[in-house]
Amino acid sequence: MTTRTEHDSLGPHEVPAAAYWGVHTARALVNFPISGTPVGSHRALVAALGAVKLAAARANHELGLLDERRFTAIAAAAEELRVGTLDDQMVVDVIQGGAGTSTNMNANEVIANRALELLGLPRGAYDEVHPLDHVNRCQSTNDVYPTAVRIALLAAIDRLERSTAALAEAFAARATRFRTVAKVGRTQLQDAVPMTVGQELGAFAVTLREELARLADSRSLLCEVNLGATAIGTGITAHPGYRRRALSHLAEITGRPIIAAGDLVEATSDTGAFVQVSGVLKRVVVKASKICNDLRLLSSGPQAGFGELQLPPRQAGSSIMPGKVNPVIPEMVNQVAFWVIGTDTTVTMAAEGGQLQLNAFEPVICHGLLQGFAWTAAAFDALRELCVAGITVDEERLAASAASNAGLATALTPLIGYAASAEIAKAALGGRGDVRALALAGGVDAAELDELLRPERLANLDG
Amino acid sequence: MTTRTEHDSLGPHEVPAAAYWGVHTARALVNFPISGTPVGSHRALVAALGAVKLAAARANHELGLLDERRFTAIAAAAEELRVGTLDDQMVVDVIQGGAGTSTNMNANEVIANRALELLGLPRGAYDEVHPLDHVNRCQSTNDVYPTAVRIALLAAIDRLERSTAALAEAFAARATRFRTVAKVGRTQLQDAVPMTVGQELGAFAVTLREELARLADSRSLLCEVNLGATAIGTGITAHPGYRRRALSHLAEITGRPIIAAGDLVEATSDTGAFVQVSGVLKRVVVKASKICNDLRLLSSGPQAGFGELQLPPRQAGSSIMPGKVNPVIPEMVNQVAFWVIGTDTTVTMAAEGGQLQLNAFEPVICHGLLQGFAWTAAAFDALRELCVAGITVDEERLAASAASNAGLATALTPLIGYAASAEIAKAALGGRGDVRALALAGGVDAAELDELLRPERLANLDG
Amino acid sequence: MTTRTEHDSLGPHEVPAAAYWGVHTARALVNFPISGTPVGSHRALVAALGAVKLAAARANHELGLLDERRFTAIAAAAEELRVGTLDDQMVVDVIQGGAGTSTNMNANEVIANRALELLGLPRGAYDEVHPLDHVNRCQSTNDVYPTAVRIALLAAIDRLERSTAALAEAFAARATRFRTVAKVGRTQLQDAVPMTVGQELGAFAVTLREELARLADSRSLLCEVNLGATAIGTGITAHPGYRRRALSHLAEITGRPIIAAGDLVEATSDTGAFVQVSGVLKRVVVKASKICNDLRLLSSGPQAGFGELQLPPRQAGSSIMPGKVNPVIPEMVNQVAFWVIGTDTTVTMAAEGGQLQLNAFEPVICHGLLQGFAWTAAAFDALRELCVAGITVDEERLAASAASNAGLATALTPLIGYAASAEIAKAALGGRGDVRALALAGGVDAAELDELLRPERLANLDG
Amino acid sequence: MTTRTEHDSLGPHEVPAAAYWGVHTARALVNFPISGTPVGSHRALVAALGAVKLAAARANHELGLLDERRFTAIAAAAEELRVGTLDDQMVVDVIQGGAGTSTNMNANEVIANRALELLGLPRGAYDEVHPLDHVNRCQSTNDVYPTAVRIALLAAIDRLERSTAALAEAFAARATRFRTVAKVGRTQLQDAVPMTVGQELGAFAVTLREELARLADSRSLLCEVNLGATAIGTGITAHPGYRRRALSHLAEITGRPIIAAGDLVEATSDTGAFVQVSGVLKRVVVKASKICNDLRLLSSGPQAGFGELQLPPRQAGSSIMPGKVNPVIPEMVNQVAFWVIGTDTTVTMAAEGGQLQLNAFEPVICHGLLQGFAWTAAAFDALRELCVAGITVDEERLAASAASNAGLATALTPLIGYAASAEIAKAALGGRGDVRALALAGGVDAAELDELLRPERLANLDG
Repeated sequence: MTTRTEHDSLGPHEVPAAAYWGVHTARALVNFPISGTPVGSHRALVAALGAVKLAAARANHELGLLDERRFTAIAAAAEELRVGTLDDQMVVDVIQGGAGTSTNMNANEVIANRALELLGLPRGAYDEVHPLDHVNRCQSTNDVYPTAVRIALLAAIDRLERSTAALAEAFAARATRFRTVAKVGRTQLQDAVPMTVGQELGAFAVTLREELARLADSRSLLCEVNLGATAIGTGITAHPGYRRRALSHLAEITGRPIIAAGDLVEATSDTGAFVQVSGVLKRVVVKASKICNDLRLLSSGPQAGFGELQLPPRQAGSSIMPGKVNPVIPEMVNQVAFWVIGTDTTVTMAAEGGQLQLNAFEPVICHGLLQGFAWTAAAFDALRELCVAGITVDEERLAASAASNAGLATALTPLIGYAASAEIAKAALGGRGDVRALALAGGVDAAELDELLRPERLANLDG
Repeated sequence: MTTRTEHDSLGPHEVPAAAYWGVHTARALVNFPISGTPVGSHRALVAALGAVKLAAARANHELGLLDERRFTAIAAAAEELRVGTLDDQMVVDVIQGGAGTSTNMNANEVIANRALELLGLPRGAYDEVHPLDHVNRCQSTNDVYPTAVRIALLAAIDRLERSTAALAEAFAARATRFRTVAKVGRTQLQDAVPMTVGQELGAFAVTLREELARLADSRSLLCEVNLGATAIGTGITAHPGYRRRALSHLAEITGRPIIAAGDLVEATSDTGAFVQVSGVLKRVVVKASKICNDLRLLSSGPQAGFGELQLPPRQAGSSIMPGKVNPVIPEMVNQVAFWVIGTDTTVTMAAEGGQLQLNAFEPVICHGLLQGFAWTAAAFDALRELCVAGITVDEERLAASAASNAGLATALTPLIGYAASAEIAKAALGGRGDVRALALAGGVDAAELDELLRPERLANLDG
Repeated sequence: MTTRTEHDSLGPHEVPAAAYWGVHTARALVNFPISGTPVGSHRALVAALGAVKLAAARANHELGLLDERRFTAIAAAAEELRVGTLDDQMVVDVIQGGAGTSTNMNANEVIANRALELLGLPRGAYDEVHPLDHVNRCQSTNDVYPTAVRIALLAAIDRLERSTAALAEAFAARATRFRTVAKVGRTQLQDAVPMTVGQELGAFAVTLREELARLADSRSLLCEVNLGATAIGTGITAHPGYRRRALSHLAEITGRPIIAAGDLVEATSDTGAFVQVSGVLKRVVVKASKICNDLRLLSSGPQAGFGELQLPPRQAGSSIMPGKVNPVIPEMVNQVAFWVIGTDTTVTMAAEGGQLQLNAFEPVICHGLLQGFAWTAAAFDALRELCVAGITVDEERLAASAASNAGLATALTPLIGYAASAEIAKAALGGRGDVRALALAGGVDAAELDELLRPERLANLDG
Repeated sequence: MTTRTEHDSLGPHEVPAAAYWGVHTARALVNFPISGTPVGSHRALVAALGAVKLAAARANHELGLLDERRFTAIAAAAEELRVGTLDDQMVVDVIQGGAGTSTNMNANEVIANRALELLGLPRGAYDEVHPLDHVNRCQSTNDVYPTAVRIALLAAIDRLERSTAALAEAFAARATRFRTVAKVGRTQLQDAVPMTVGQELGAFAVTLREELARLADSRSLLCEVNLGATAIGTGITAHPGYRRRALSHLAEITGRPIIAAGDLVEATSDTGAFVQVSGVLKRVVVKASKICNDLRLLSSGPQAGFGELQLPPRQAGSSIMPGKVNPVIPEMVNQVAFWVIGTDTTVTMAAEGGQLQLNAFEPVICHGLLQGFAWTAAAFDALRELCVAGITVDEERLAASAASNAGLATALTPLIGYAASAEIAKAALGGRGDVRALALAGGVDAAELDELLRPERLANLDG
């Protein structure tokens, strides 16, 4: 591999001749050989970095801090970063020390060298376009990086919102299909009072739809950024007119209502928005995991289990048991949920570990959250397409168990009291007849009984 | 101990003659000998149960389901539960199986027997006032308990809000006091660029104040309750007019904007609101822990540490080292934070573990959250009164380190570029003079230098 | 309340005249009003503190550092602390800053004042018996407290070991009772191949018994203590002969193989043993929670669920559904498990937060672990007595589902291959006959079939 | 892309013509599009699968269940899987439902098709070599997969052991280098009593070396495998002689003391070994994180911080502050620690979620643990090479702070008592002289003082 030599305050260092990235990135590659996953794998993050760099370049140009020629080249290179053609140049590891400095410098170097190329100049000719003095002008990792992470998360939220909404719709469609199919409701896994399949599946739709509001809420916190804060929030080295201009450009480029944080010193060290977003994501997956637990339980059997639902078979279930089909899609979702919940612990500890004017652990927060959102959205799409959309029910089995349900005795309590109802329930469980017959025998009026045990009434569908 | 005999579907059981509680509670005491902490220790929970029972009694009375005599007695007893005179009768363990049934039954029994007493009747005369048929009329544990937990959490949030606001004010007051005291800002624990003590302490105030909005937000989710849902959300056994009336009374009694959840089946099994509130509480303590880490670090030394702040001494710090004073209050807050973060894991697992139409693990969620809010509020009050209010600074030490700070070279980068500034910084760190002298020697104009290094400008206080 | 005035380096402070505790404890009560739970509630911890103080007093006496009169009085008071008559004097909050200083000082003060009383002297006459110069001689909180916590944990482990062993025995007894009762095994909640109830319950016994080895292992780490390390491990202020003597006495008093840690500086800041013990406890409860999930699942129904096991009814299950009986004991155990798992997060963060020569957060570790062990042991006792011992099975239902199980086709694969077996399984699931009949029809030899489908062979009980 | 058509019980499915994997893998690729990380990225897991398949083939051959021709081909293909030439064919996602079925089937299919190729037969000619009937003979995912995961973890432990040992050695070497350099010890971040740099860094070596014993311990649990258990532990479909032979071969192939688990039903559903290993790994990273926190703290400054240690500069620290060098390597290690701690939560939840005769969530446990071990080992190597090996100290600064340390007063307490020492400490802190001068002035004998304050004595280096 041919190389070029670059220098920084630590001395010279070889860089592959063809690489847009430079000496800082090269050192970072040596320093952080941990996960093998480059930051370029997070498309949303690279796009956000491109947007921030473009916004900064525009502001610097307007303020006369960047001449026309450099601005044009830097802006073009930043735009390429934003749209994705330079992702393979964002090579530093997602797990890195330095509070994102290596990611920011990777971007600065790639933009500088790509800009140089656009100007017909060789890579490394930093006198002409400098990663720091020009590309990073009026900026610090400490404002660029957290700003970019927030913007990347906004995109991640968009995608999860779509996946969640679609999943909720899929449950709602199934709920409509089985709206009046009666079944036994269960509390604490014990047979309880009647309901319908539509109510059960509909509750999944409702609970997921509630997440849309939470996801939307979490956007507002993320739209408050500290761009212009530079190193610690005092805006040192930034032109007085820079912040307002940069934010305005950033809002326009991203199409988001980006605003300045109220206190830039606070905003530069604070990772509260990430803790909040992580909590929102955790709530989403906790609900999804509960739903998948229910799907697996309701489809258990098929003979010696609940056997109420059938999930569409997705693959032969076993390498040893012929004919067995397992609920592999819900099981996968459960595991994504456990992963995301674990990541919330990671985010919490990273946030708690911030010190004084900065949190050095934002890279692991960034990776954990972007991964978590992506996995969850992918899992929800799979759950919808490959599982929920094809759910069927065993109406016969459901009807039989609904009819013999001793829990019907509950419906009699307003009429005959808890103790008398308990006697009937006990008799039904003991196999001495079903609830209706026992109640009749006990002297309850037949017409009254019919009304009390009418399925629509029991399930409260009369509306 | 003299006893009376009560009966339930499992048979007879002895109960202390003087106890307001009855057979269900007695069995629960046998079944759950775990923590030794009775539910009566959560004042807010008992008050909420009293409020719910009072609201239900009023609704039942209006609907003709409870006669005047019984209503008057039950309402009076429920009110006593609400205001706190019966706390010592709420004896079941905070850790209990049964999804809160034992807590609800404890309340039903206490109200029934206290009502009997008010009517001049003996304890256990349930033909007259029955814990289930009268006190629990139109109710189920599955709607009463989650509703009461939500209302209890509203009170817990109120208290933490007050404590958080006061703590933020205390930091703000200290920030004002030291508004212009210059110091070295630090990122990644390394000396960075200048700022003031006011900015540092002010950021603590700002970041805590942000929590007030989050706490307020979390209230709205909690005000959606499933009262009237009864067992699984279908409202079985409840009079059609009950729910609207009960909610209206509950809103009036509690003074909260209580509303019905949109889908009662979903609401009866969903614990998303608790996950969300736990996340909000976790964010509060993550911030508090970070602040306390900073306080301990800034007050480290006093000789061989940062030595910038002095925390008021609260106790002799050591059983062996005379004169040592330790940051015991922040250390306590850190530990409360770790506890609350652990509880969030507990709440998460309990929420994920819900099955089908109910979550059986709400009692541990309830205990964990009420304990967490209470401990955090107490810790914040202690932090404010015993620590923050008495913070002083070592202005001399701060001034000396601010003057010699090599990070001042950063302020020169817009003028002389990153590389030249780096040379000056290196020279300063190498002890070859301070930044101002080195810059002058390097040919920077003295007046320009004075302006660039003006403390107010450096800290961006010019406004 | 009458008081006496005590002094420390911060000045005078009032103390209740009758209290054995003194000024340090009084200040701690003001400083840490958090949980309301006094350290005296942890019997094992107070006993351990008494043992350490007694061992230290004996060593000091032997070395001539404590005269006969003081020694006799201090030793007698320490012994009282050890056996439990002074628990109500250990009043500082379990949540406290200061790395345990307040707990150690509470003990020092209680011993000093009780010793004074034994000598016929008034409380507070510290010239005669001083909490620091006499009771704490050659000691520091930083060696006394971690040593005492370790010894307390040894006792906690003892108790959990007994409870775990007894619980395993209870499962084993039930397994023996139902050794040959055939049933359907399940993987991924889907019907799989045959087994027996004895195997299923027996696996619970086996998996719990494995924990006994882990609990025993964890003792060895706890027996390495840093007593004699004093403040930071250098043994400063301790007589050269003190450590060996103190450890020897401690081993004798506690009956434990207490030894000195290999590197006292390391041992004084290290909380690795607590992280390890917390992990051991977590593994125990993870297994218990899985078992309880299974018990709840296997007893689900009774009609529309698995319905294979019956757990003994412990209380009326519902305030609304007559006759319903819920698995309240397993549900309680699940919640204890979630709590302990949360506490492991707390312990982890507290351990990670240690700095330089000490971990200031040992009090929360101590409280979390002692609470976790106690709750788990109590939960296991309840599970054994109130649930496992009374488990019964529905043999009829089990036999029916075992016979119709399509998973029997698996037994044919060695004979006819996976694909042919799959066809039979599919046919059986489709209701076209049971596996035996279908195989016969497919040409399998009847005798070979009888041997392949013999229940003991299927469950591998022949062995 | 040209394809071939394969069939399974769900029907036909296209597979790339060149792929060794087949229909099951193809379906799994559709079902689990989650992480984008193929199982082939876990070299140790693929090697372990190869070893298990080879051992099974040998056993089957010996038992006459596999003819010579097929055995030779299957064994050769399994060996290729083991040594790594087929990693790119192990394409199913690391996050997958089905308890590892897709991973096992991916291996079965790759081995079958590679064996077919070795036999000169086309891919998909499963009549000749069948993924299930031949490659998977006497096996089930439920015994193969957990066995392979355990063997993979043994390799992961080996690597971490080496990295941990080397890191400990690096600290020990630095400790030796600075063995007698005096410094101030600190407890609760406050100046405490004297020690040496050698003791401080030596404690890091000691604490890491302790982990070697824990890692070694954890191997023994992992060497107990359930191979031969097949679906649920009853060994159904496996030849009676298979298990003993397969284990013996597996032990020989892997060079590990592999043994059969005592109760195969228990072993097939139990994930306790993984919980235990995860706890061991967590303890390792908790210690590493504490050490890195200390390194960052001790190297803080360089002017306005502790400034005692210098970490070797690894990269320019800031995109804005010239000359700033940050502790990027320890920061990276902290983040790896937070990640691993989060994964422990994931592992815990996955383990707790197992049901009845199997844990469907082993894939996420497997991925989490293998990733965690690999990241930790890589982080430790970087920490050693790029940071610890180059640590230097500021002896001058250390000496100055050690001399002025008020904590020296502690050394006087055995002579003059706690209260008098406290007066001296207070005076020293108040700037009224150093401890030695103040003690002399207070009448302490000079020679006695010299001995008490002798550095080697203070640090307890006399031996």
